[in-house]
Amino acid sequence: MSKLSMYPISLDGQSVEQKRQEIKAYFNNTFDLFEKIFELLKDESVFYKKSEPTRHPMIFYFGHTATFFINKLINMKIIKERINPSFESIFAVGVDEMSWDDMNERNYEWPKVAEVREYRNSVRELVNELIMTLDFSLPIEQTSPMWIILMGIEHERIHIETSLVLHRQMPIEFIKEVAVFNICEHTAKSPKNEMVSIKAEQVKLGKEHSHHLYGWDNEYGEYSENVADFEVSKYLVSNGEYMEFVKDGGYEKLEYWDEEGAAFLKRSGAKYPHFWVEEDGKFRYRALSRIIDMPEDWPVDVNALEAEAFCRYKSKKDGVEYKLPSEAEYRVIYNHAKLEDVPKLHESRANINFYHYASSCPVNEFGFNGIYDVIGNVWQWSRTPIRGFKGFEVHEAYDDFSTPTFDEKHALILGASWASSGNLIMKHSRYAFRKHFFQNAGFRYVISKNENASEDIYESDALVSQYCEFQYGDEHFGVENFAKSCVALANRYAINKSKALDLGCATGRATFELAKTFEQVEGIDFSVRFVQVGSKLKDEGYVAFSDRLEGDLSQNKKVTIEELGYEKLRDRVSFWQGDACNLKPNFRGYDLIMATNLIDRLYNPKLFLESVHERLNDDGILILTSPYTWQESSTKKEFWLGGYEDENGKEVRTLESLKAILANNFELLGVEDLEFVIKETARKYQHTISQVTVWKKR
Amino acid sequence: MSKLSMYPISLDGQSVEQKRQEIKAYFNNTFDLFEKIFELLKDESVFYKKSEPTRHPMIFYFGHTATFFINKLINMKIIKERINPSFESIFAVGVDEMSWDDMNERNYEWPKVAEVREYRNSVRELVNELIMTLDFSLPIEQTSPMWIILMGIEHERIHIETSLVLHRQMPIEFIKEVAVFNICEHTAKSPKNEMVSIKAEQVKLGKEHSHHLYGWDNEYGEYSENVADFEVSKYLVSNGEYMEFVKDGGYEKLEYWDEEGAAFLKRSGAKYPHFWVEEDGKFRYRALSRIIDMPEDWPVDVNALEAEAFCRYKSKKDGVEYKLPSEAEYRVIYNHAKLEDVPKLHESRANINFYHYASSCPVNEFGFNGIYDVIGNVWQWSRTPIRGFKGFEVHEAYDDFSTPTFDEKHALILGASWASSGNLIMKHSRYAFRKHFFQNAGFRYVISKNENASEDIYESDALVSQYCEFQYGDEHFGVENFAKSCVALANRYAINKSKALDLGCATGRATFELAKTFEQVEGIDFSVRFVQVGSKLKDEGYVAFSDRLEGDLSQNKKVTIEELGYEKLRDRVSFWQGDACNLKPNFRGYDLIMATNLIDRLYNPKLFLESVHERLNDDGILILTSPYTWQESSTKKEFWLGGYEDENGKEVRTLESLKAILANNFELLGVEDLEFVIKETARKYQHTISQVTVWKKR
Repeated sequence: MSKLSMYPISLDGQSVEQKRQEIKAYFNNTFDLFEKIFELLKDESVFYKKSEPTRHPMIFYFGHTATFFINKLINMKIIKERINPSFESIFAVGVDEMSWDDMNERNYEWPKVAEVREYRNSVRELVNELIMTLDFSLPIEQTSPMWIILMGIEHERIHIETSLVLHRQMPIEFIKEVAVFNICEHTAKSPKNEMVSIKAEQVKLGKEHSHHLYGWDNEYGEYSENVADFEVSKYLVSNGEYMEFVKDGGYEKLEYWDEEGAAFLKRSGAKYPHFWVEEDGKFRYRALSRIIDMPEDWPVDVNALEAEAFCRYKSKKDGVEYKLPSEAEYRVIYNHAKLEDVPKLHESRANINFYHYASSCPVNEFGFNGIYDVIGNVWQWSRTPIRGFKGFEVHEAYDDFSTPTFDEKHALILGASWASSGNLIMKHSRYAFRKHFFQNAGFRYVISKNENASEDIYESDALVSQYCEFQYGDEHFGVENFAKSCVALANRYAINKSKALDLGCATGRATFELAKTFEQVEGIDFSVRFVQVGSKLKDEGYVAFSDRLEGDLSQNKKVTIEELGYEKLRDRVSFWQGDACNLKPNFRGYDLIMATNLIDRLYNPKLFLESVHERLNDDGILILTSPYTWQESSTKKEFWLGGYEDENGKEVRTLESLKAILANNFELLGVEDLEFVIKETARKYQHTISQVTVWKKR
Repeated sequence: MSKLSMYPISLDGQSVEQKRQEIKAYFNNTFDLFEKIFELLKDESVFYKKSEPTRHPMIFYFGHTATFFINKLINMKIIKERINPSFESIFAVGVDEMSWDDMNERNYEWPKVAEVREYRNSVRELVNELIMTLDFSLPIEQTSPMWIILMGIEHERIHIETSLVLHRQMPIEFIKEVAVFNICEHTAKSPKNEMVSIKAEQVKLGKEHSHHLYGWDNEYGEYSENVADFEVSKYLVSNGEYMEFVKDGGYEKLEYWDEEGAAFLKRSGAKYPHFWVEEDGKFRYRALSRIIDMPEDWPVDVNALEAEAFCRYKSKKDGVEYKLPSEAEYRVIYNHAKLEDVPKLHESRANINFYHYASSCPVNEFGFNGIYDVIGNVWQWSRTPIRGFKGFEVHEAYDDFSTPTFDEKHALILGASWASSGNLIMKHSRYAFRKHFFQNAGFRYVISKNENASEDIYESDALVSQYCEFQYGDEHFGVENFAKSCVALANRYAINKSKALDLGCATGRATFELAKTFEQVEGIDFSVRFVQVGSKLKDEGYVAFSDRLEGDLSQNKKVTIEELGYEKLRDRVSFWQGDACNLKPNFRGYDLIMATNLIDRLYNPKLFLESVHERLNDDGILILTSPYTWQESSTKKEFWLGGYEDENGKEVRTLESLKAILANNFELLGVEDLEFVIKETARKYQHTISQVTVWKKR
């Protein structure tokens, strides 16, 4: 099957033209492979079924990986024209279970499979053309437009793996066999597991920016840890080994489960692993496209909560503490196994990249210096919640790839699976999931004295922290909190007060403030980095951030929902991720739309302004505030609403353009100035006078 | 002689290693050639002689091109250690006649030639090592560290040409023959000049950033002009053609000279061209290393004032208006001549790059489609003062390469000479000199209706303009002018008031304010971009800048010395270029040193603070103001004075470090806060609270 999936390409090389060819081949291989896995769905009706109630139907994923390319290319101003605005909004968000992803099916009208197929073809054509024409140099760096293409490719590679999990969760009658996805045919009794001693080592995690393979933001930076001696299980825990725990009623004994685990048991009613099938008293096994007799010597597929429960069970039984390995311990194991990074590691040496099977295989088939499946077969859960390394920086094109998972609730999975390819099988890649998620994942255990790094609830993202301080921090130079003054002003003008939209809500202060007078308030921001702050305030009752003092020094600040007096408003506010220039159709019916400091940050403000009236009720009020700080980095000059001279040399000012664009659908009620101050350090501030314009829908 | 000078290298290519070899060869060829021309100086004593009273002695130039590499590499933080701080300060400034260049010989103690030779060898060694080790990719872009190496090379190529002019201005007995620099041997009667018609053309000047040859800041950007039909002289004006003007007493008739020209005649007492030698009633000709009989058919070497005077003379004589070509007209001529850019243009086709001679040659020797010496032989003066093209941006490593010449007093010279190489012979390169300067330059004339672009006195440099508005513009948010409040504070503390230093003077407002109470005030800034503003206020009596409104829109502002009430202070202030971390020894003897918002912009603030007391008189006062905005772009983290945690995790604050560093030599008199506001646009401001610390010398 080696032909099925290519190995990732290198970022450097000597010839740009040759690199175009490599990227082109890699892109089309990825696009093909992704479409190939949807052949597993028995018929088109299955595209509209969900494998998990909390997830979108399969059609979403089929469209999603293609729209991703377009949304990023638009966002990075590499292309100017969308291919299908409607597709590119409905297929845009809702991949994971995030509270700001809109999963309400009433808000979606899914298109036909044929339409999505056609759409995918147009995207493929465009991307292929860009690969051949984009201006870039070698090595390809994060600032290169070609990086965005690679980002789209690796993003799709992730969905190849996760979609296969969803397929596998589908009732078997919805899935058909596809020749290339062959299930491993051999199995035996599970080998007896044993512990292997690993020597202490100081490991450095984190990847150099000069590394020759594509990386996601969370891989870069520095982290080093002194890992003491520990022992690790020789094999992944097999179905046979896990069976004992199930037979001993492990799923009934709450002592083995923590709070999150207990909640999972309650919610799911699970009595045994998700991919086990009970048939008249005995367990069989659900492979991707087939139910087979229990392969005892294959790794068990469980989520992190089940893996932790097993460790507690085994610890009690043996009187030794077993736990899941930490990220740092795993690197020590990796080094002990003398593994090289791809592409030096030939795919034939592990159960990865679809090379051998489209399934797991025996836990004693692929060994590395005495430890088996250090990479491949199934992912292995760690006990380490994902965090950014020192020097972590988001990539501007995908600033919410990682940060939403830096919530101490997402555990790293290590080592990749049979369905992993591309960036997923690299030494430095880091993927994390909620502990109740199912992946092609199992676990191995360690006996270890190594401590876990303690959790840090404070926002480490400098820009988000700066905005938290702006919205939840102190007042400076006697200028009142901007979110509050905007809302006070809004209340002066609003006619009806049932539903409001805080568009470009950032960290959500104004969303909550509006909820004091509006029954329902939706906060939308383009970036989940910001949305998650308001969302956290709603769900967990606090905002925590670092307030910069001098240089790199900062102090931690925490504000609770009680201090803010918002406890009773929780149910009135909701936060969503969205693109103001391409909002989903369901965001409508508002009495007030407030867009603070938004228009001069949009890639195409006119697009937003020309249609915003459709989302307002009669007598609806639109409030715009902006200092009109036009800059190429946010808005290409051709899309500026002001601050330039037209072809006749006439000065164009933003206010005049607003009047011209909004004239047909709005009446201008008022224009005023409103100051705000953003703190950069204890001594440096941005002091801005935004212009507020208030518009009533005609 | 083709071996003597290599052709410039391309910025792109396929192999980094091969490019290293090319750069290495090009660098050493440049360094060699530069040292070769100093063999023309008869003996070492000549190194200490000046060819022009307004210039440094030759030893300065001998050291200057080497120190340039080090100063730029330090400034760009590519290296951390200086090779010889003293050399790198005395050889740093004073190349051109700029009012802010310190030309007072009492302030210099020139080292021995052998010492400078040894120093040059160490620099050569270091640069060769950097060329082989610096991390860079192809094409080499302006942000690449390798660009700084190329900058040093092209800078030295400029000095190869300008130093040869200085050599030629030396009394002949100081110069000896050097075989490789051979003088052209043939001459004849000068050919009769005639006019050639050139067709109208719309020309676009300015170079793309993607261009494959190194460029200086002033070459990039956009400019287009519709050039109407015009006529141009077939030949450069020869000594023979110019003779007529001299014989007719052209140098005595003021009608032919403008104000600047008249001043030149008065100052120089010139009666004929500078390189003509009168021997018993007849003129001979000074070549580089020999005085020869007048070569009538060689181009006359004159400055722009003489060239303009000739045009007025000839216009009157023929009753047609002749003038010097404009930059745009020259491009039309260039195109008419079907000239290619280097390296396509083979050096054998023109008198350039030392290929044929180390002298001029007959004006009818190298023709291009009917026009002669379009490139090569001698530079030709234009009537166009150099300005930045649309989109002009300084390079951060050399932000004052061009901007000081954007003063409407520097005229572009076109077409290169026999001594031009490297960037000097490129189609897009742009060099300008004061009109009274001598170069290997002559002229040709045109008959043309094309207008000259009108002069723009307003500062086009966005950052400098922003600072002008900060120092000379309006007050905002009720915060008083910062320069004024700093000086008010200084006057409160100062004990003696004879001499003050405004270090980091920027656009010079505080320098003038201090002069109200101090008899003598020196303003020093690292960047001539800023120094020239205060200097202009002193010399021309006004400051003119653009005040940004919204986006790209701005309004022009002009403030006169009368409005400011500084007329009587002119003689008390002087402005100089200098590096606070490596100040020249003569800057001492101050009663007050005021450094406003300086320390957090220095590459090594400790270096400055540890020695500043040596420059103060007894009872001298040091005033530091800063918001402590430490940033890697200005100061590598290891040199920060605060804003970080030390190896023990202890927070280090700037104020504490200042106390520690200054404790031995200063007593801390006071600490206060002082606000300032910098306007970015009509609606966006930086509002900062700087900390002022006042120190009295122990």
